[in-house]
Amino acid sequence: MLLRDIAAALSAPYVGDGEIEIVGIADPAHVNEAGEARTSRLALAMTGEAVAALTTCDARAAVVTTGCDVPLDRFDAVIEVELPRAALAVLTKLFDHPPQIAPAIHPSAVVAPDAVIAEGAGVGPLAVVGARARVGPGTMIHAHVTIGANATIGRDCLIHAGARIGDRVRIGDRVVLHHNVSIGADGFSFVAPEPASAQDAGLLRIHSIGTVVLEDDVEVGANSAIDRATLAATRVGRNTKIDNLVQIGHNVEIGESCLICGMVGISGSVKIGDRVVLGGAVGIADHVTIGSDAKIAARSAVAGDVPPNAVMAGVPAVPRGRAFEQIRLVGRLRSLYTTVAELKTRVRDLEQGLKQGLGSAGETGADKPPES
Amino acid sequence: MLLRDIAAALSAPYVGDGEIEIVGIADPAHVNEAGEARTSRLALAMTGEAVAALTTCDARAAVVTTGCDVPLDRFDAVIEVELPRAALAVLTKLFDHPPQIAPAIHPSAVVAPDAVIAEGAGVGPLAVVGARARVGPGTMIHAHVTIGANATIGRDCLIHAGARIGDRVRIGDRVVLHHNVSIGADGFSFVAPEPASAQDAGLLRIHSIGTVVLEDDVEVGANSAIDRATLAATRVGRNTKIDNLVQIGHNVEIGESCLICGMVGISGSVKIGDRVVLGGAVGIADHVTIGSDAKIAARSAVAGDVPPNAVMAGVPAVPRGRAFEQIRLVGRLRSLYTTVAELKTRVRDLEQGLKQGLGSAGETGADKPPES
Amino acid sequence: MLLRDIAAALSAPYVGDGEIEIVGIADPAHVNEAGEARTSRLALAMTGEAVAALTTCDARAAVVTTGCDVPLDRFDAVIEVELPRAALAVLTKLFDHPPQIAPAIHPSAVVAPDAVIAEGAGVGPLAVVGARARVGPGTMIHAHVTIGANATIGRDCLIHAGARIGDRVRIGDRVVLHHNVSIGADGFSFVAPEPASAQDAGLLRIHSIGTVVLEDDVEVGANSAIDRATLAATRVGRNTKIDNLVQIGHNVEIGESCLICGMVGISGSVKIGDRVVLGGAVGIADHVTIGSDAKIAARSAVAGDVPPNAVMAGVPAVPRGRAFEQIRLVGRLRSLYTTVAELKTRVRDLEQGLKQGLGSAGETGADKPPES
Repeated sequence: MLLRDIAAALSAPYVGDGEIEIVGIADPAHVNEAGEARTSRLALAMTGEAVAALTTCDARAAVVTTGCDVPLDRFDAVIEVELPRAALAVLTKLFDHPPQIAPAIHPSAVVAPDAVIAEGAGVGPLAVVGARARVGPGTMIHAHVTIGANATIGRDCLIHAGARIGDRVRIGDRVVLHHNVSIGADGFSFVAPEPASAQDAGLLRIHSIGTVVLEDDVEVGANSAIDRATLAATRVGRNTKIDNLVQIGHNVEIGESCLICGMVGISGSVKIGDRVVLGGAVGIADHVTIGSDAKIAARSAVAGDVPPNAVMAGVPAVPRGRAFEQIRLVGRLRSLYTTVAELKTRVRDLEQGLKQGLGSAGETGADKPPES
Repeated sequence: MLLRDIAAALSAPYVGDGEIEIVGIADPAHVNEAGEARTSRLALAMTGEAVAALTTCDARAAVVTTGCDVPLDRFDAVIEVELPRAALAVLTKLFDHPPQIAPAIHPSAVVAPDAVIAEGAGVGPLAVVGARARVGPGTMIHAHVTIGANATIGRDCLIHAGARIGDRVRIGDRVVLHHNVSIGADGFSFVAPEPASAQDAGLLRIHSIGTVVLEDDVEVGANSAIDRATLAATRVGRNTKIDNLVQIGHNVEIGESCLICGMVGISGSVKIGDRVVLGGAVGIADHVTIGSDAKIAARSAVAGDVPPNAVMAGVPAVPRGRAFEQIRLVGRLRSLYTTVAELKTRVRDLEQGLKQGLGSAGETGADKPPES
Repeated sequence: MLLRDIAAALSAPYVGDGEIEIVGIADPAHVNEAGEARTSRLALAMTGEAVAALTTCDARAAVVTTGCDVPLDRFDAVIEVELPRAALAVLTKLFDHPPQIAPAIHPSAVVAPDAVIAEGAGVGPLAVVGARARVGPGTMIHAHVTIGANATIGRDCLIHAGARIGDRVRIGDRVVLHHNVSIGADGFSFVAPEPASAQDAGLLRIHSIGTVVLEDDVEVGANSAIDRATLAATRVGRNTKIDNLVQIGHNVEIGESCLICGMVGISGSVKIGDRVVLGGAVGIADHVTIGSDAKIAARSAVAGDVPPNAVMAGVPAVPRGRAFEQIRLVGRLRSLYTTVAELKTRVRDLEQGLKQGLGSAGETGADKPPES
């Protein structure tokens, strides 16, 4: 790809030779590991650390942040971008090479005769597609994926190896499911028999006869699980992104454009608005409602409803400022205990002093004995 | 199914027309999404929210809780139940439609010649069954499941797609394993070489030559993992239910009818009694014993033994009342610091006042200087 | 195996009959479950509990810790070891029987014509090996494993059922991957568009075009996930052991001989030194650096850099002594609140007493009103 075409994709200006052929992008600290290809790599220097590495890398071209102080004369061409993270999104997309399968049904796949695989979709080796399932055009079903009966998958999805899509699950367009994702396992819902004396009869199972709906542009990380609803649908809204090893319980409803980081656990029947951010390993108790644009700090445990726009932290989660204050105050507890112990001594001294002093004056204002 | 048959299954009375044909059950808020089928759905209105939705749903019949104030005249028939959750268990079981495979060995499955698949068991597409493994009658092994050599699986089990069952694992009757469960991976057990100076020799691996035993009616959620014992068996007792993304370490022994919620982590050699409830994301340190009927609140970390019937919470877990008190007391710390600061000022004032006052009287009871 | 050969493997002395044929090892409490084979088991009695069980077990031979007080006369032979855990490593290795596949390509596996499977490697039933992938000699690829294009796997690795190895991933020698491991899913990296008003345009995805490198002797537990780097490589150093359900984000670099316990979450771009121990369910915030030989207690959350050799605990993690002190101090808060309330009363009494007492003497040293 020519450097000037990359600059155009970035809508960014460049100085130098736009005709340089670029074969890939790289962190300047690692450019030289690319062997023969190193000079035709585009070095991305949009952090301070990466800028420092520019001085020793052999790439002929670099991308830098506007106004950044870099040794431009080392390079035959330099592109300047305003928003480094947005530029990284464009550049990684340009040079991405996701796993490929042919846009066809691999002969080793087991596809039900009444499943409908659109023209241009691919079904990889040893994948299984159930009865009456539908796979949209451009969608790539990789090796070892299981698709249940009556499931529907939209167009241009990327379903990575080992993903499990249960019966009747509905998946929109451009959805990405990573390795070993579980969509549509049964919810965890049991009833202890009443009266309690009947406990030998075991736990009663509430079956999950609902489904899961993933709207367009949802992404779900490796080994995450989204359970089926009891009656209706567990739902993840358009454009919401979910990281690895996340658990989403039955009946949960999540809005659009949320970011749900790794190892988050969302209990059953939780409702989450739009553009909510849940940091890593956040836990949400069942039936809680979280308003749009709320942000929950990593490792927090949300036990009650959260209003829109709130920024929460802690276990249990409270407004972030209070959570941080609590951490500070707990950190100073030792000195508080010391202060209180000193005060106790001084108060006892005062009491004794007052007793003696006033006693000698024929009065007593403090008749309590000193305490230890 | 006729409404009167459903009422009979619930052992519950009904009013109205028992001859109505019911095709499914639904949350009243979602009944109208069922299109043509909506009028022949049974609307379940056993929560306040659902009752409110009854007034706009088009179902001809409903299930309500006895004594609940509902617009009965909208319906041609109404069933009244005493215990709504128990009724939900019955109703969802009646209308459940779990994934189906034929009760036969799919031609694409790879089954060892000396494996024993009982009459009436099913082995789904592309499943693998190892040497001398045994699968009981009525058990359904879904697509992409791996069963190791010498493993035994009882009758009427449901093993969902992608579950991994290691060599020699023993599984009882009516066990349910969800997507991608791992039963019988090796335990995590390493020894740092001694003396420490030998660390270049690497970590010594303690191999897991034991197995895993899951007793009758155990259920294990998607992407959970139960590791193999070092010598004997990691064991999960009859009727215990385990949610998604749970980790159970080597040598663990869990009793009967426990409920283990999502993302719980149980370290090696833990012993858990019967009917124990572990809330979401609870962690248990290794070698801990938890008595029967104990309950551990979500997100707690158990670092020591827990007696029977205890209700614990917190990190580290303490009796729940104390844990909640600690949260309240930490929440009021700012005002405690303020109070102590004020007391300090007042004590200093007292000390100065006493010194001056008594000093004028020829005495001093407080000879310490004021502190800041 | 003869008892004397086992003693030789342990470099340990024995007393009694070295010619006894041993068919396996067992916990004394479980020896008698071995039926006919029980007398030819070697009973391992290297803990107090196990020693107690020796008195009722039928094994003819035992391994004990030097100096341990055991009923030696029950046994025909007894081996004495100095370091019981190291001995357990040796003994479990001697009697381990990991899952076996033939050292050949199973006819049901789907192997790309240009993949290179070394002589003596095994590819199990229904495994998939992508284009130009390389598998070293002695490596066993079990059933249902997926290996991406251009991935390389060294010699003598053990890749358990359902593991997913993405394109271009590089794996060293003697690596063990357990059930359903994901190596090389995409990192979780999105950019909110700027300005914020453009949020309808959705989140921009930063693609992961890098790879993952696992060095020699790495082990990764069941259902764990290690994500691909953005540009270069997520890297796990030689001999590092990772437990089940661990999440390792993109761009992370982990040194040698670390122990990473179950359910640990390591955010993107974290750097971890050598011989670091992360307890169960530890969380590490993104871009943090953890020095060599640091130890982080279970359940801790690391929010900032940790120096070498540090021992940390808590949320957020602080030096362990401070963390434990904070737990103790928080546990005593109720009595602190009580003490402060009493002090308040006593100070008020003093103030009033001083006012009255000194007032009667014509002075006032405390002019503040009493507070409640």
